[in-house]
Amino acid sequence: MDVYISGVGMTKFGRSKEPLEKMMAEAGFSALRDAQLERADAIYLGVMNVEEFVGDSNFAALLVDTLGLAGVPSTRVETASSTGAGAFETAFYAVASGHMKHVLVLAGEKMTHLPTAKATRILSEAIDRSERRYGATMPALAAMIAQKYAQTFNLSPLKLEDILGQVAIKNHSNGTLNPYAQFRKTITKDDYLKSQMVSYPLRVYDCAPITDGASAMVLTSQPTPIRVSGIGHATDTSAMRHRTSFTSFNSTKEAAHKAYAMARLNPPDIQFAEVHDAFTPFEIIGTEDLGFFSAGEGWKALEEGATLLRGRLPINPSGGLKARGHPVGASGLAQLVEIVYQLRGEAGTERQLERAEIGLAHSIGGLGNNNLVTILERTDGKRILKAGTLPFEEGWNPDDQCETSVPKKSIPSPPLMGVGTLEAFTTLYAVPEGFRSPITLGLVKTGPGEVVMACNPDYRSPEPLKMGKKVSLKMQEGLYVFEKLTFWNRLKHWIEKLAH
Amino acid sequence: MDVYISGVGMTKFGRSKEPLEKMMAEAGFSALRDAQLERADAIYLGVMNVEEFVGDSNFAALLVDTLGLAGVPSTRVETASSTGAGAFETAFYAVASGHMKHVLVLAGEKMTHLPTAKATRILSEAIDRSERRYGATMPALAAMIAQKYAQTFNLSPLKLEDILGQVAIKNHSNGTLNPYAQFRKTITKDDYLKSQMVSYPLRVYDCAPITDGASAMVLTSQPTPIRVSGIGHATDTSAMRHRTSFTSFNSTKEAAHKAYAMARLNPPDIQFAEVHDAFTPFEIIGTEDLGFFSAGEGWKALEEGATLLRGRLPINPSGGLKARGHPVGASGLAQLVEIVYQLRGEAGTERQLERAEIGLAHSIGGLGNNNLVTILERTDGKRILKAGTLPFEEGWNPDDQCETSVPKKSIPSPPLMGVGTLEAFTTLYAVPEGFRSPITLGLVKTGPGEVVMACNPDYRSPEPLKMGKKVSLKMQEGLYVFEKLTFWNRLKHWIEKLAH
Repeated sequence: MDVYISGVGMTKFGRSKEPLEKMMAEAGFSALRDAQLERADAIYLGVMNVEEFVGDSNFAALLVDTLGLAGVPSTRVETASSTGAGAFETAFYAVASGHMKHVLVLAGEKMTHLPTAKATRILSEAIDRSERRYGATMPALAAMIAQKYAQTFNLSPLKLEDILGQVAIKNHSNGTLNPYAQFRKTITKDDYLKSQMVSYPLRVYDCAPITDGASAMVLTSQPTPIRVSGIGHATDTSAMRHRTSFTSFNSTKEAAHKAYAMARLNPPDIQFAEVHDAFTPFEIIGTEDLGFFSAGEGWKALEEGATLLRGRLPINPSGGLKARGHPVGASGLAQLVEIVYQLRGEAGTERQLERAEIGLAHSIGGLGNNNLVTILERTDGKRILKAGTLPFEEGWNPDDQCETSVPKKSIPSPPLMGVGTLEAFTTLYAVPEGFRSPITLGLVKTGPGEVVMACNPDYRSPEPLKMGKKVSLKMQEGLYVFEKLTFWNRLKHWIEKLAH
Repeated sequence: MDVYISGVGMTKFGRSKEPLEKMMAEAGFSALRDAQLERADAIYLGVMNVEEFVGDSNFAALLVDTLGLAGVPSTRVETASSTGAGAFETAFYAVASGHMKHVLVLAGEKMTHLPTAKATRILSEAIDRSERRYGATMPALAAMIAQKYAQTFNLSPLKLEDILGQVAIKNHSNGTLNPYAQFRKTITKDDYLKSQMVSYPLRVYDCAPITDGASAMVLTSQPTPIRVSGIGHATDTSAMRHRTSFTSFNSTKEAAHKAYAMARLNPPDIQFAEVHDAFTPFEIIGTEDLGFFSAGEGWKALEEGATLLRGRLPINPSGGLKARGHPVGASGLAQLVEIVYQLRGEAGTERQLERAEIGLAHSIGGLGNNNLVTILERTDGKRILKAGTLPFEEGWNPDDQCETSVPKKSIPSPPLMGVGTLEAFTTLYAVPEGFRSPITLGLVKTGPGEVVMACNPDYRSPEPLKMGKKVSLKMQEGLYVFEKLTFWNRLKHWIEKLAH
């Protein structure tokens, strides 16, 4: 059974004094009003971590009561930072099953009332336990991905800084046109460069902010002008070091493949997209993983202006997570609300896109291990497949353009103490509660397909760390520690090896 | 599209040293093996509060990785203590939609590693904030419900003690026959009476234990001998004091009504049931809310032996939450696993029921505000409607036999300070972290449809509290405080009233 969208709503994102359930109810009432409904057959709500951010559980029941709809079935759904998209997907199946006619989806999070270090600690719980022990945060892992991307595609540190800044500048510019956005101010390259380093090379302006907010949508089996034409969902390994690629997300590629297959569309058919830009490098990688640009070409498209609001493929017309704000549970659904505004022509004169018949939203859960891709389409739109593109069956497949596919879980054997290769590194300044700033983290390759997380106490070394170089590795208090391989280190290592 | 069950699995419930994801993977592998599958199209997992019990988030991704199935879509579902049933319902729609062929449902919780007061505090977060402030716990609210039930149906304290003990004794006896149960020992009336008071009149043996455990199931669109024939889900007000009844759960009645309607069955068609007995009075009330017995008659059926393993309507053949144990997220699915064992004739010689073609599971979320009812049926079974029962259309409706229906939310006006009627009370001994034992709590009626939670500092009073009696009510440090209405209290109250 086809599923349509009959109502949308959201609160202004930012710092709010309202309790979470009130914010979510506000968004919910807007969506119900928009759909001309007084109640729904069921409610699905996405909240990532209401237990620790707010101190409540049984939130599905509290929310339905706040809406004045006690009685209506209510289910909470969670897929880490893609929770809003996960709740949408779950509601989609409920309607598609034919058992529900009108379903209200709500998504929200309240975070700003907590100290940043505490919020950072809570957000870090989405990271694999073995990597979290080192003090790794989401920005730290994203920073290592940015470093690896630069190394792989030969971008100098200056060039990397420049393109990441361009993502931030573009999304802040779009955000000025969005009345729901947390930040409605443009930023300059200078502002970007002056912003504080969070985890080298990522600055404050590379990271989506801590935000309160809620978004809502009504899904229905009754035809409306907007249809859900594709949904894809995929996971990846919990630990980043078990991945087959550090410059792309298999879970995005797999989810995109499923969404395109269901919609019978190819990447060139997408007219605009909301791409998960919790960190600026993720937007560039996202546009590659979604098949809009080839691997290593995303930054070029950005530089050419292709992804600007008036470019040939606008990315994050809403301002993205970067400027609209990122109340973690709410963002995945807020992206879809933006797609609906655009498809309906309701985005306001300045933000409204010219071509808005097919839009895509891409949401990342955790460090890219629970991702969703959703495609919405106008039912009265004409599908004009671009010249030269193939019919879907022979169309885009993520494996055509990328060497990797989702790996079978392999439990790596304990690494050899001694020497490894530094795959990526970062120095993290904004550490989670309980850690001392700064922390230098690295991914060290110890053998074919075997990578470990390690820390480096010697972060102020005058000789900078370099990716691809050999480092020494040892175990200290249960943690791997890596150091630059000096002459004396090498000598010691060889003596130890000979002694064996 | 019809939905069938092709595999089930569970761990032994009890105290476990395994991490939660390992326990859930163990149950998952059993269910996949049982279904002769190596992977599923999607995974839905129910965990109530992994954030605070275990300290992880992004658990859906961690679990799929632990299963060696990184890549497969994975979504976490939560409906408080009915989470296992909520995950099952969500998976049901995914298969019913036709988008998924084989879906793995996993449910679990790990709790025993925490001190009891901390676990109690975490579990209490499912209670409405305004009631939680008083130190109210789940057993405390259940105790007040038991008291109100006894008053409404004229059971003396001794009689109430006797019937609650019978529930515990019956379920422990059934548990001895279940290899997956936490407790496999019979208990006597004497053991019951000697067990510690948790919240008067509920003792340790009236409350389901704190448990570790996991359960799993594979749902499929391919016909198997067991079909999902009915699912119903309903909520109720967050605060207990806003309910229209304290002796039944509207959410159970509403959910049951939906499940019976979908299955086109009436209560007399159900041959056996797993009924949510987190507290012994809930089993008795459950059998009434589900339409098996009239309101106030459940305890009589229990006394007559109707609900024994060899009775005419066996309730909790597995031992129930009471004896099998209650890892909160897992229980709702574990009940369904037991139904499948019985329907397949795989429950073991001693536990296997003679008539096992249609079984029902009933799961309570929170203090009865997010409940699910699920009916499973043998596809080769003959539906022999009982003599005298009506065809479904004119059949059972919860409103026929009970005066209440799901209330519209009403925000009560602030109560008059002064005098109210004591609706129910309890003295709570096992208090949550941060409170001092004991706490005496009461529900005080201050006007038509207006009830407040209040505490009574004078718990050691020689003159016992009585339900239905007038009490004085005042506000102290932001909490309502009630006291027995003595001559001097009354006088003071009248003088105050006259002075106005």
